[in-house]
Amino acid sequence: MSKIKVGVAGYGVIGQRLADGVALQGDMELVGVANIAPTLSIRALKERGMPYDLYLVDGADKQKFADLNIPVAGTFEDLLDKVDIMLDSSPGGVGEKNKELYEKKGIKAVFQGGEKNSVADVFFHGYANYEKGVGANYLKLTSCNTTGLIRSVDCLDKAYGIEKVAITIVRRVADPGDYHRGLTNALQIEKAPSHQAVDLMTIMPHVEATGILVHTPVTHGHIITVLATGKQKITKEMAIEAFQKHDRIRMVRIADGFLGNASLFRYARDLGNPRGDMYEIAIWEESIVESGADIMYALNIPQEAITIPETIDAIRAACKLQLTSEEATAVTNKYLGIGKWK
Amino acid sequence: MSKIKVGVAGYGVIGQRLADGVALQGDMELVGVANIAPTLSIRALKERGMPYDLYLVDGADKQKFADLNIPVAGTFEDLLDKVDIMLDSSPGGVGEKNKELYEKKGIKAVFQGGEKNSVADVFFHGYANYEKGVGANYLKLTSCNTTGLIRSVDCLDKAYGIEKVAITIVRRVADPGDYHRGLTNALQIEKAPSHQAVDLMTIMPHVEATGILVHTPVTHGHIITVLATGKQKITKEMAIEAFQKHDRIRMVRIADGFLGNASLFRYARDLGNPRGDMYEIAIWEESIVESGADIMYALNIPQEAITIPETIDAIRAACKLQLTSEEATAVTNKYLGIGKWK
Amino acid sequence: MSKIKVGVAGYGVIGQRLADGVALQGDMELVGVANIAPTLSIRALKERGMPYDLYLVDGADKQKFADLNIPVAGTFEDLLDKVDIMLDSSPGGVGEKNKELYEKKGIKAVFQGGEKNSVADVFFHGYANYEKGVGANYLKLTSCNTTGLIRSVDCLDKAYGIEKVAITIVRRVADPGDYHRGLTNALQIEKAPSHQAVDLMTIMPHVEATGILVHTPVTHGHIITVLATGKQKITKEMAIEAFQKHDRIRMVRIADGFLGNASLFRYARDLGNPRGDMYEIAIWEESIVESGADIMYALNIPQEAITIPETIDAIRAACKLQLTSEEATAVTNKYLGIGKWK
Amino acid sequence: MSKIKVGVAGYGVIGQRLADGVALQGDMELVGVANIAPTLSIRALKERGMPYDLYLVDGADKQKFADLNIPVAGTFEDLLDKVDIMLDSSPGGVGEKNKELYEKKGIKAVFQGGEKNSVADVFFHGYANYEKGVGANYLKLTSCNTTGLIRSVDCLDKAYGIEKVAITIVRRVADPGDYHRGLTNALQIEKAPSHQAVDLMTIMPHVEATGILVHTPVTHGHIITVLATGKQKITKEMAIEAFQKHDRIRMVRIADGFLGNASLFRYARDLGNPRGDMYEIAIWEESIVESGADIMYALNIPQEAITIPETIDAIRAACKLQLTSEEATAVTNKYLGIGKWK
Repeated sequence: MSKIKVGVAGYGVIGQRLADGVALQGDMELVGVANIAPTLSIRALKERGMPYDLYLVDGADKQKFADLNIPVAGTFEDLLDKVDIMLDSSPGGVGEKNKELYEKKGIKAVFQGGEKNSVADVFFHGYANYEKGVGANYLKLTSCNTTGLIRSVDCLDKAYGIEKVAITIVRRVADPGDYHRGLTNALQIEKAPSHQAVDLMTIMPHVEATGILVHTPVTHGHIITVLATGKQKITKEMAIEAFQKHDRIRMVRIADGFLGNASLFRYARDLGNPRGDMYEIAIWEESIVESGADIMYALNIPQEAITIPETIDAIRAACKLQLTSEEATAVTNKYLGIGKWK
Repeated sequence: MSKIKVGVAGYGVIGQRLADGVALQGDMELVGVANIAPTLSIRALKERGMPYDLYLVDGADKQKFADLNIPVAGTFEDLLDKVDIMLDSSPGGVGEKNKELYEKKGIKAVFQGGEKNSVADVFFHGYANYEKGVGANYLKLTSCNTTGLIRSVDCLDKAYGIEKVAITIVRRVADPGDYHRGLTNALQIEKAPSHQAVDLMTIMPHVEATGILVHTPVTHGHIITVLATGKQKITKEMAIEAFQKHDRIRMVRIADGFLGNASLFRYARDLGNPRGDMYEIAIWEESIVESGADIMYALNIPQEAITIPETIDAIRAACKLQLTSEEATAVTNKYLGIGKWK
Repeated sequence: MSKIKVGVAGYGVIGQRLADGVALQGDMELVGVANIAPTLSIRALKERGMPYDLYLVDGADKQKFADLNIPVAGTFEDLLDKVDIMLDSSPGGVGEKNKELYEKKGIKAVFQGGEKNSVADVFFHGYANYEKGVGANYLKLTSCNTTGLIRSVDCLDKAYGIEKVAITIVRRVADPGDYHRGLTNALQIEKAPSHQAVDLMTIMPHVEATGILVHTPVTHGHIITVLATGKQKITKEMAIEAFQKHDRIRMVRIADGFLGNASLFRYARDLGNPRGDMYEIAIWEESIVESGADIMYALNIPQEAITIPETIDAIRAACKLQLTSEEATAVTNKYLGIGKWK
Repeated sequence: MSKIKVGVAGYGVIGQRLADGVALQGDMELVGVANIAPTLSIRALKERGMPYDLYLVDGADKQKFADLNIPVAGTFEDLLDKVDIMLDSSPGGVGEKNKELYEKKGIKAVFQGGEKNSVADVFFHGYANYEKGVGANYLKLTSCNTTGLIRSVDCLDKAYGIEKVAITIVRRVADPGDYHRGLTNALQIEKAPSHQAVDLMTIMPHVEATGILVHTPVTHGHIITVLATGKQKITKEMAIEAFQKHDRIRMVRIADGFLGNASLFRYARDLGNPRGDMYEIAIWEESIVESGADIMYALNIPQEAITIPETIDAIRAACKLQLTSEEATAVTNKYLGIGKWK
């Protein structure tokens, strides 16, 4: 079988990680990436020796790229002519405009969380509603927090049944290197319910969810606390057992030195992972606590890389590479090296 | 009736605020404060012109105070000989040693949250269990987070009945000016359940509580999210109605510019409050959200000043100045100027 | 002699402190303050009981103020009709527009550092070039960093002669409570030379100056290091002697607990200063070090309050209340309580 | 010629980077690394599949390693028996004790900046005093700030002659993942002169140096401003020309998006460098400014990786692999991939 040809629009924080992730998939071919300006990430791509072909979107200043000796493989339309599916990680709102081109060219696309839900036929998660994405033309991924949150809730739901969750998102306010946004010595609260709780109900309509989000001045990963009400009583041991079986969840211990989100970032760097990225969420064993019929736990979301596996799952669904979540996630995980540490 | 004579042990973040608070009470007399070293706070007391007499605890280096021309009124025992009750805000553990002296001198004492519960006869909150403190000799105040949290839960409990709460504490990790502790670009998680949830159950034994605490690198106030299960369904309107009636709770709106804990600190400074302190917790109207039978909300804890009113309530209880919470808190509030803005 | 009538335009971080400062001057009368929206600061003014009359600038939504029961004394033009001089702390650029009104009404004005130099006849500092402001109609104050920096350089210059300075500004990036700007775990560098070095040369044209500015994610005060070349060799003792005589400079010691900018903020709060403000810069004794013919030292700038005294000096100059810096600053200091701690 | 056999003591932030760096040198063999506890870094080594043999130092709890299935190759003495030279990056003070063992075994060692100077025969920098290390048995590397600072000063000194420098160090207070130290919303000042200025004079005794250090609450790289007085006038163009020729210096531009230390960390991550490390210092073109006879500039120090190249230079000097700085640094750079981007 020939490989699925994939392009990436937007070579930013997410785009470059999508490109790396697709390039690792044995049954996919990364045709190239598209961007508009010679950003630091594009300069780094050049310094790396252009492992990926670069295409310029409309409005790009070609001369600037030429002045910097950055090779350009063609226009955005040139890229679209060569691919089966686009991963669109353009800035919010741009994906919607790009979609017109995708439709014109007759290619599929997976949009990132910043776009409106209406841009896509399916609001997608690789574990919780894979089957809805099978054969679909336009999918939108859940956001970083929602993707990781759903992994854990879906995991408990499949094992024991979940009726209700209440979440508190302790959100990192910016990515490392962001200078266009930031908080200094301040927590910021947002109107409840948080969109992540609402999105969870869209993906898992049988679960009632609410939540509050608080921005915090850190950059290495969100922490979410989840209070979950099961259809049956879920003990701490039952939760641990389910979480430990999940390939995209790491159970960690404060006692081992995983004191918070920054420990996990350091650990991923110590692993030598490119960019210090981690695809898995982490759940702290010591955070899991029962309260009456409910169970509460805290998880960590490495915001820059968390959606990469589920986005690749989305390619598998859209292109019918696999027909079930179980099969698709297993293949994605194998190529990304997820779970090999278990 | 003669005024109750009060002394303060430990002139740190809490101690100096206790002194200011007691000095404002029309039916109390602040005899003096005790400390061990000429800290910045003591130097500031000197620069203010010594509004309070200073006594030196055992081990203090008298010469240092003399070299700085800081007047000293006597020893710790001298202070104890003049007071009816001590407010002990010494560093954790010291209060326990001081207690021997208090017993020897036959005076009452209120300890701060850093001491072990066993130091006191009663673990006290001005609203939730005032009657237990009436006439007691040794009381321990709840910690800053627990004090503010209980205000809100007790408020709903008295109005509608509360069966269960699950909390997430987004904790400020240090006070402004702290250099001996701090986090830099990191969230830190603690073993669950948090002590605040456990303490709430001690004070309000009919409520089941659990919670997770996450330290964040900020200094101006904790934020707690609370998911509360009522004995009856509590609507958003019902919650607002109850909270608005409470003198030590401020209902605030994101829409008005109260974006987070730092807005509240700024507001307290703009009010001209000494040190930018605020005695009230704040609850964000937009954070209140119903989920099935439950209600969720977020509140702010100004950690430096929050326990002052309840500590003064404790004096009232111990010395039988008032016999009910309602009477006692009304008098404390009047002298502290709480609620006059309503 | 009748009091000078003063108005304040813009009731933000600086405006409210200007109002408080003017209200303390025995020879001035604060007529009122003007603002456009019911910000948190205006709400705090209301809660304080309206110690200052409030006037609304053009474009203000009167209904909003009415809905909040905030008393309004009149329009901006009403205010201008009653004053001799305006302190304009409007957002950058607005002052320039306001100036047309001031000219029309024939009143003087002092603009804050955010305006262009061209808005004023004189770029002013209370110590370094007071005489240039005497009788002038439009003055612009130096910015917070420049104001504090010049205090120290002018102090050494008057005592010993200064030829050259090189500065590094470790800048706090936002004020407490700012949510519209901020840095998270990042230092940010700016094009050299920093405007503060350039501004210093404008005010003190006989001194050669350069400098580099680095933004840091903190809120309680800038720190500036200064390398100064004297006309004669300046020893550490000579520098200390000069600094100690200056009323708006505090010599502090790391050994006493003044570990950094946050210690000074804490100290100002412990003093009970409104808002925890401090009018003085601080210079660390342990930071002063000789290097060949040069002397190096570090100073702290409390950015919110530092320009208040020099702005009041500017009123004195413009209105010819005093004809020399020595006389004017002495009066300002007396009314603000500066130097009484010495 | 047989390869130089190298061991690493202490597998922490520096130790693991030293191991990686040595492993890349074609003329060296990394025999193994030694540590005392199964830290996160050791757990990561295990998850990576043990690319390096692990030896346990005295006092290590063997059972803990066994329980975690971490293979152990032997004792610290076993490691010492196999190597020609040790890189000692143990916690401060431990290196001094280890030295007794090194002497007993007759092997050379390079100590990190945390040890006292007296531990070594030579206080070493790969560019500024390479010849002093040639054949020496015990060398101590300059600290991270000093190493990067000297690169730039030595570069100008060799090109044009330098007489004097004054530095301000805007220091990152902790590494990413550090929970045992940190600052929150505070700058902290240290007694002047900073040790880095003193150390520079030890390495470059013909240069007069002073400096002030300010800790800031960030984790991704120190920024140093340098005011340098040349033996001749050094223009901005002359400085740029010299810096651009240096293999371990990157000239960067704010205009290109390098806004501060966090941009450089992001860039290194985007390059795919392991751990997001960078061996080069960066100097901002827009920061370079002339002032009279002096030149001022700002540089960035990636604190975790900066000393790796100079430490490998130290091996070359001690083992006489190369006899000059020029030859040695060229070989180190080649194997580390430094300068290939030029």
